[in-house]
Amino acid sequence: MSSKINKLLVDTSKEINQEIRNMFSSQVQPSDLYMASTHLINAGGKRFRPFLVIKSCELVGGKRENALQIAAAIEFIHNFTLIHDDIMDRDEKRRGVPSVHVLWGIPIALLSGDLLFAKAYETIINHAKTHQTPIRRTLKIIDFITQATISLCEGQALDMLFESMFEVSEREYIRMISKKTAALMEAAAKSGAIIGGGNYHQVEKLGKFAVYIGLGFQIIDDVLGLTADEQVLGKPVGSDLREGKRTLILIHALSQANKTQRKQIVSILGDNNASPNQINIIINLIQKLGSIEYATRKAEKYIEKAKTQLSIFPSSRDKEVLSDLCNYIIERKY
Amino acid sequence: MSSKINKLLVDTSKEINQEIRNMFSSQVQPSDLYMASTHLINAGGKRFRPFLVIKSCELVGGKRENALQIAAAIEFIHNFTLIHDDIMDRDEKRRGVPSVHVLWGIPIALLSGDLLFAKAYETIINHAKTHQTPIRRTLKIIDFITQATISLCEGQALDMLFESMFEVSEREYIRMISKKTAALMEAAAKSGAIIGGGNYHQVEKLGKFAVYIGLGFQIIDDVLGLTADEQVLGKPVGSDLREGKRTLILIHALSQANKTQRKQIVSILGDNNASPNQINIIINLIQKLGSIEYATRKAEKYIEKAKTQLSIFPSSRDKEVLSDLCNYIIERKY
Repeated sequence: MSSKINKLLVDTSKEINQEIRNMFSSQVQPSDLYMASTHLINAGGKRFRPFLVIKSCELVGGKRENALQIAAAIEFIHNFTLIHDDIMDRDEKRRGVPSVHVLWGIPIALLSGDLLFAKAYETIINHAKTHQTPIRRTLKIIDFITQATISLCEGQALDMLFESMFEVSEREYIRMISKKTAALMEAAAKSGAIIGGGNYHQVEKLGKFAVYIGLGFQIIDDVLGLTADEQVLGKPVGSDLREGKRTLILIHALSQANKTQRKQIVSILGDNNASPNQINIIINLIQKLGSIEYATRKAEKYIEKAKTQLSIFPSSRDKEVLSDLCNYIIERKY
Repeated sequence: MSSKINKLLVDTSKEINQEIRNMFSSQVQPSDLYMASTHLINAGGKRFRPFLVIKSCELVGGKRENALQIAAAIEFIHNFTLIHDDIMDRDEKRRGVPSVHVLWGIPIALLSGDLLFAKAYETIINHAKTHQTPIRRTLKIIDFITQATISLCEGQALDMLFESMFEVSEREYIRMISKKTAALMEAAAKSGAIIGGGNYHQVEKLGKFAVYIGLGFQIIDDVLGLTADEQVLGKPVGSDLREGKRTLILIHALSQANKTQRKQIVSILGDNNASPNQINIIINLIQKLGSIEYATRKAEKYIEKAKTQLSIFPSSRDKEVLSDLCNYIIERKY
């Protein structure tokens, strides 16, 4: 089933990539800025958020073609935040390629993120101009995306703030990833449902579905950051530890560790020069403390909660796909 | 007359500041991010763009109260770009206070710009929710602001690109400032006219008015960057030269200079460590070459063109104020 979803995601990617190519084809000036803007988009990515837009649209009976531009807009927002996050976190690799600021420098990278942000709105407005979308729906989508972006900014600020905090609770962590990850997924699903003509109840349910998926997704992302194959992951294993990021895994490990173990973990936390060997020792320790198991269970619980949100929808192929997507999130390898 | 406009600008500032305070009062988390976002706004600024929104609204017969939130939104866009520009240009002072990235570091500064960008859209959407604005107008305003921001990004990219180019023509410079400065002024005036209920012709005319004002404004800004009192200016005199910015003044000076003078100018261009004395020598040379005079005349021509756009409007107090604003731009000292 995971491979079936994988294929659907790949198909969606192709569609979305075509959509994005169409949008950017006439934009060539200044070329550096536009190349920087599309660098990460061209490098790949799962197109998870566009998929949520399209599937939510279809689940409520809307047409797929009607959702494509909105899906692209959400992907722009996602990529704009990735470009800026990489500058802030000094991450030099993403999706297996150098980050935008590594290739073009911080000024153009910063600006290319801003441009993508604006392009997201342009795309939604163009959609309204070229489709017979009721204007009220367009404004709702703009509202969703705007609120999500405000949340993303707040979430990223919290994420950075936590790096310098001694104690971060599980509750604070969940609040942070709600903003940093789940909010845009929520906007994706709700926008898809709106553009598909869904009613209030359907839009809200799909929004909740996406929030839970987002929480599960982020926790699994953190797990993969410690356990995945570096080649498959596209970035160094353990970079969260090197950056001192407070993940659920780390929060659990610190709460379970004895004094010596705690010292050991804290000693490499936020140390950008920690060797792969040092990182490995800590990952093994975290493993032993049951923290990866703990986080994985937590993610599974969120994904279960996500599934229950779908109960209001009658059985359909699209509902099945969204349910499969839940399993995919847990089973994915990167 | 200049002092009359000054008073009007100050009054508008107070109104807009109150509006902004109301908007941000409930937003306190994470406090660093919100403090960074409002730092430059609180530091002052002429509120030139909000003024354009409000006056354009009033000129077409709209109510001032109806324009305040839109005016604040435009000021958010302006301040978001200032925060990001200061990071890109490594400018450490603005409006007489340290830049946002100097106080909070690049990560929070970057994020606070993103937040302001999103807040601009939130403000426009909230306006639509709380006023009886026809929804079509709201979408038009979002369209204007989005296109302006895309232009701002392109303009800033061109501005940076020019720093590393050997020859920049006057035509290229005008194209760059059209995007970097005039586009947002155009959006301000058009948004004001739209919210005030102006017809197509009125909206277009006010847009053109603002474009010409924007061009004149930017050229005078460049002149003041070389000639103003440092205390009044709020940033070091000659920083454009230190950054190697291609201003109209510089383009003219290079075209008029003989070989020796050219060498002299080029030697300090882009030299961040140039001493105040070195800068002064170059400013005197530029003065002698007639470049400041040339740029000032050019600005005056644009301002004249701006005034002629107003001819379709019948005489009124608001028209008079906009005409006075034109003179103010030429006569202002900072």
